[in-house]
Amino acid sequence: MVENKKIIMVGIPGVGKTSLLEIMVDILKNHQKNVIVINYGTLMFEVAKENGLKDRDELRKLSVTEQQRLQKIAAEKISEHNEEIVIIDTHAFINTPEGYYPGLPLHVLKIIKPDNFVSVSAKPEEIYNRRMKDETRNRDKITLANIKKELDVQSGMISACSVITGSPVRLVLNTEGNITEAADKIIKAIGL
Amino acid sequence: MVENKKIIMVGIPGVGKTSLLEIMVDILKNHQKNVIVINYGTLMFEVAKENGLKDRDELRKLSVTEQQRLQKIAAEKISEHNEEIVIIDTHAFINTPEGYYPGLPLHVLKIIKPDNFVSVSAKPEEIYNRRMKDETRNRDKITLANIKKELDVQSGMISACSVITGSPVRLVLNTEGNITEAADKIIKAIGL
Amino acid sequence: MVENKKIIMVGIPGVGKTSLLEIMVDILKNHQKNVIVINYGTLMFEVAKENGLKDRDELRKLSVTEQQRLQKIAAEKISEHNEEIVIIDTHAFINTPEGYYPGLPLHVLKIIKPDNFVSVSAKPEEIYNRRMKDETRNRDKITLANIKKELDVQSGMISACSVITGSPVRLVLNTEGNITEAADKIIKAIGL
Repeated sequence: MVENKKIIMVGIPGVGKTSLLEIMVDILKNHQKNVIVINYGTLMFEVAKENGLKDRDELRKLSVTEQQRLQKIAAEKISEHNEEIVIIDTHAFINTPEGYYPGLPLHVLKIIKPDNFVSVSAKPEEIYNRRMKDETRNRDKITLANIKKELDVQSGMISACSVITGSPVRLVLNTEGNITEAADKIIKAIGL
Repeated sequence: MVENKKIIMVGIPGVGKTSLLEIMVDILKNHQKNVIVINYGTLMFEVAKENGLKDRDELRKLSVTEQQRLQKIAAEKISEHNEEIVIIDTHAFINTPEGYYPGLPLHVLKIIKPDNFVSVSAKPEEIYNRRMKDETRNRDKITLANIKKELDVQSGMISACSVITGSPVRLVLNTEGNITEAADKIIKAIGL
Repeated sequence: MVENKKIIMVGIPGVGKTSLLEIMVDILKNHQKNVIVINYGTLMFEVAKENGLKDRDELRKLSVTEQQRLQKIAAEKISEHNEEIVIIDTHAFINTPEGYYPGLPLHVLKIIKPDNFVSVSAKPEEIYNRRMKDETRNRDKITLANIKKELDVQSGMISACSVITGSPVRLVLNTEGNITEAADKIIKAIGL
């Protein structure tokens, strides 16, 4: 295993995780840190393509065994990264018709061995507004009740991840207008 | 391992899981599906009887090690089923004097390797009314606060199960008068 | 493994766990039980000192691998205790700048193999009042919102612990003025 910091950052769509990550990376690079952000979903799709798949939809139709094989390859690729700080940009779960798919199952966590989890949340109303502005989404299905349920599931799943790995989870409330402050807080808290 | 779909369905008493399951099985059989429903509690008791136990109360008094041995045998029996669709009817936890007993511990999940979890809930008020009508229950202990606590624990435990197995969990709100719709939704979502 | 009862008792600061434990031990000793209470944090620090560390702050600065090695030694010491009743006094998580550190990670649970979990909570307002009276605490950071969040995380983490071990978790609400009753209830429920 490479000796560096591996940070897993999760957040349901609309919490503002992408912007938060960009600011974090800016700050870290200004401090001459060797940092890389790996999007787990993108990496999984690359691995799947190398294994013969054509689009993301095919990925979900694979057997559980085959999906886990691809997840394992992706996790191994992450664990081989030797940058000083490796941030894994992912989700505690992905909302699919089959239900909430865990983004960080036990067998993946055992390979990545993250040092820290950062779980980003936001006020349900702010998440609602961000999702309603997102043109790629089906707005009919966006309700405050669903968003609250998703925040609950995120919290439950990330607690399980923390118990499984023994690594701490920092909960971050990303409030509108305070994103640089939030990025700064995370960096100081984790000691990056 | 047999190549079929294994669905674990959980729900605290009073959510209407049994009726929901009956309707699901009806729909699936109408579509010529080879489906079986296994009640985990009943199976555990059968296994216990084969191992010399006389009644359910004795089961709880066994040592943790002995209980886990019986749970393992039951889980292995389930994993050997080769029907097209195997639905395991169980609970995320069982409410005992000792506390909430996990219905699906890690060592059982590793044997069953479920493809999907379905977690049934209902409005606390509807659960309350159903429990109050159930003559086998001690009605004094039924309170809305306890029901809400149980729904919370179910949610936390099933999230842990999902992270451990890597399998998705579909949350289903079973509302009075919409049970056929709920059954239909689950079947379509899971792709049965 | 020694054949006795191992009870893990958790509770966030301010729930009154220490007083509850004292009363439980009094009752058990009055009934001629051979009971020992082990504070996991204190034990971890002792193990750390035997391994060359000077203060608790150094403990947190160790690599994840080194921390886990020390946790393993502490867990093994606990599993070797042969008193009739071994109560492990600990936390579901420790609130650190890095986030919520799981007090009972998977690898520790696998060694201790607890028979029961007892998760103590209290009304957020009572926790708030107790923390405000504690002179060693930074009172600025004490808010009801934070206490509610901590109770949620405790609930999520202990659910994961229960699923991982297969052992039941008894939730106890410690209300002001009813502490002896609560101690009595736990002892009866767990069958000590």
